Amino acid sequence: MRPIKVQGEEVLVLDQRLLPTREKWVRISSAEDAYTAIKTMIVRGAPLIGVVAAYGLALSAKKVSDIEEYRKMGEWLKTARPTAINLMWAVDRVLRATGSAPSFERSWEEANKIFSEELENARKIGENGEPLFEDGDVVLTHCNAGALATVDYGTALAPLRVAKEKGKNIKVFATETRPVLQGARLTAYELVKDGFDVTLIADTAVGLTMMKGYIKKVIVGADRVLRDGTTINKIGTFQVATFAKRFNIPFYVALPSSTLDLKSRVEEVVIEERSPEELFYIKGRRIAPRGVKAFNPAFDITPPELITAIITEKGVYYPPFNFGQGP
Amino acid sequence: MRPIKVQGEEVLVLDQRLLPTREKWVRISSAEDAYTAIKTMIVRGAPLIGVVAAYGLALSAKKVSDIEEYRKMGEWLKTARPTAINLMWAVDRVLRATGSAPSFERSWEEANKIFSEELENARKIGENGEPLFEDGDVVLTHCNAGALATVDYGTALAPLRVAKEKGKNIKVFATETRPVLQGARLTAYELVKDGFDVTLIADTAVGLTMMKGYIKKVIVGADRVLRDGTTINKIGTFQVATFAKRFNIPFYVALPSSTLDLKSRVEEVVIEERSPEELFYIKGRRIAPRGVKAFNPAFDITPPELITAIITEKGVYYPPFNFGQGP
Repeated sequence: MRPIKVQGEEVLVLDQRLLPTREKWVRISSAEDAYTAIKTMIVRGAPLIGVVAAYGLALSAKKVSDIEEYRKMGEWLKTARPTAINLMWAVDRVLRATGSAPSFERSWEEANKIFSEELENARKIGENGEPLFEDGDVVLTHCNAGALATVDYGTALAPLRVAKEKGKNIKVFATETRPVLQGARLTAYELVKDGFDVTLIADTAVGLTMMKGYIKKVIVGADRVLRDGTTINKIGTFQVATFAKRFNIPFYVALPSSTLDLKSRVEEVVIEERSPEELFYIKGRRIAPRGVKAFNPAFDITPPELITAIITEKGVYYPPFNFGQGP
Repeated sequence: MRPIKVQGEEVLVLDQRLLPTREKWVRISSAEDAYTAIKTMIVRGAPLIGVVAAYGLALSAKKVSDIEEYRKMGEWLKTARPTAINLMWAVDRVLRATGSAPSFERSWEEANKIFSEELENARKIGENGEPLFEDGDVVLTHCNAGALATVDYGTALAPLRVAKEKGKNIKVFATETRPVLQGARLTAYELVKDGFDVTLIADTAVGLTMMKGYIKKVIVGADRVLRDGTTINKIGTFQVATFAKRFNIPFYVALPSSTLDLKSRVEEVVIEERSPEELFYIKGRRIAPRGVKAFNPAFDITPPELITAIITEKGVYYPPFNFGQGP
């Protein structure tokens, strides 16, 4: 299941806002299209955001001749969502590749490279993580770090897919992941399609579900991981990690190393706040009264001491985490 | 704001499933009506459930002449929801009051007594809890333990209302409380009506909101509290309590002593599991794919070590909690 199709110079992405009830493809022809698709969450998930940004920016190289204008376009594109590090990184790679003048060919080639690398990364994350899961495991995941968040296979879901391919029976619990419901709408959708046994729970039910002993392992993706393993991921991850620790359940984070941020300190990471409307309406139906305010952060911060291991395409890492030399 | 009106022998309850968008009153004329209203969550909240059950059973005394039949009706009514202890207790009181034959007068009088007691309890809980809150406090609450869960005033919200009456400025954060959204639909609704400054957050945002230092205190209600303070309350309470402990935020539980269960051990408490449909649909719109399963417990269990104090109409209790002689 690939949420992005590249045919010739045409880039199509699956509109994830409409899943699971409707499958509609949207064309990306420019940096502006990529900006809108990323900001409005037509596409989401750190690796996919990076790929879509790269293709969008590359397609705009056809229309822009001034390198300063092209660079500014790239910087603007980075503001579509402030937290996913892949967005910044992918834009920078395309800008570096294009050289001293906007080149569609060089930009496009770099976007293709990023796409292939993410495909390869997802597969390797799957292979590296697979041995951590046993036949009969019941695994909880939060949000969607599956094929729909990447270009195929997923990050958190990749080891589960490889385990299944190897004949292991893996059952999955998916949190619904309010407010955008990526667990209910996307994770459940792609795993049911792949023949997994999937059980949905409300985000409020994580504690009781673990207390009852239903969960053997947890795996989630990440939007940004810092040098010491601090994990910025979908709002609610901190809760899942906290309860996993309390009930001695292994808690794994899976990501391509493109999601590592070796420079920032945790205080420097901008936690995106999204529109209150995400809490006031569900599928167009109002669920909250007029006159109420909302605080709607999209991500939270999981401290490294709650993480059992971090899985990347390069291997499996255990605490204390140290991913780089730093700034 | 009273969610129940008793005029002569007519009992009307506000249909809480339709709030905040519609205010519709439903008539309760029998134990069967009470059973349906409680089971389908037209009414909810432990104290209100008890009052509605008492009136419904009393009204059925008009139609039943055999005491055994009346008792069986009461036992059946208790099965409408298995966790709220007030339901069991209110039915038993009406059955005891009616004597050796079903008496409408005696049953009705007992129901009225329960109603008045709960009114009085809510006010006293408010007065007892009020000194725990300071001018300028920002208080998080989960689910709805307000006027709508009781007969007026509320349990968890009663101290906040009294504090406001005394001129203290109290801001409230309400979790939306999936799956039934009592926080978004009911708590926000009744507090905005009362002129509170209310901020809604997703259940997933509790951890980050507390990490950021936005919350000074937490107060919740309860569906059943055991002798040692173990609190059975709306699913997600355990999460709120766990994070409150982590971030050294006082965590209060408010309840009338009618919600105490001095007999049961925690293993004996039945945690109600509700229909998967609550996770598959919101306001009639499907949000999860076909083929997925769901685990939908309505309550969770908060261990006493996470609780700072328990507030009842009789006073404020601090750990170690010991509410009775036990079995």
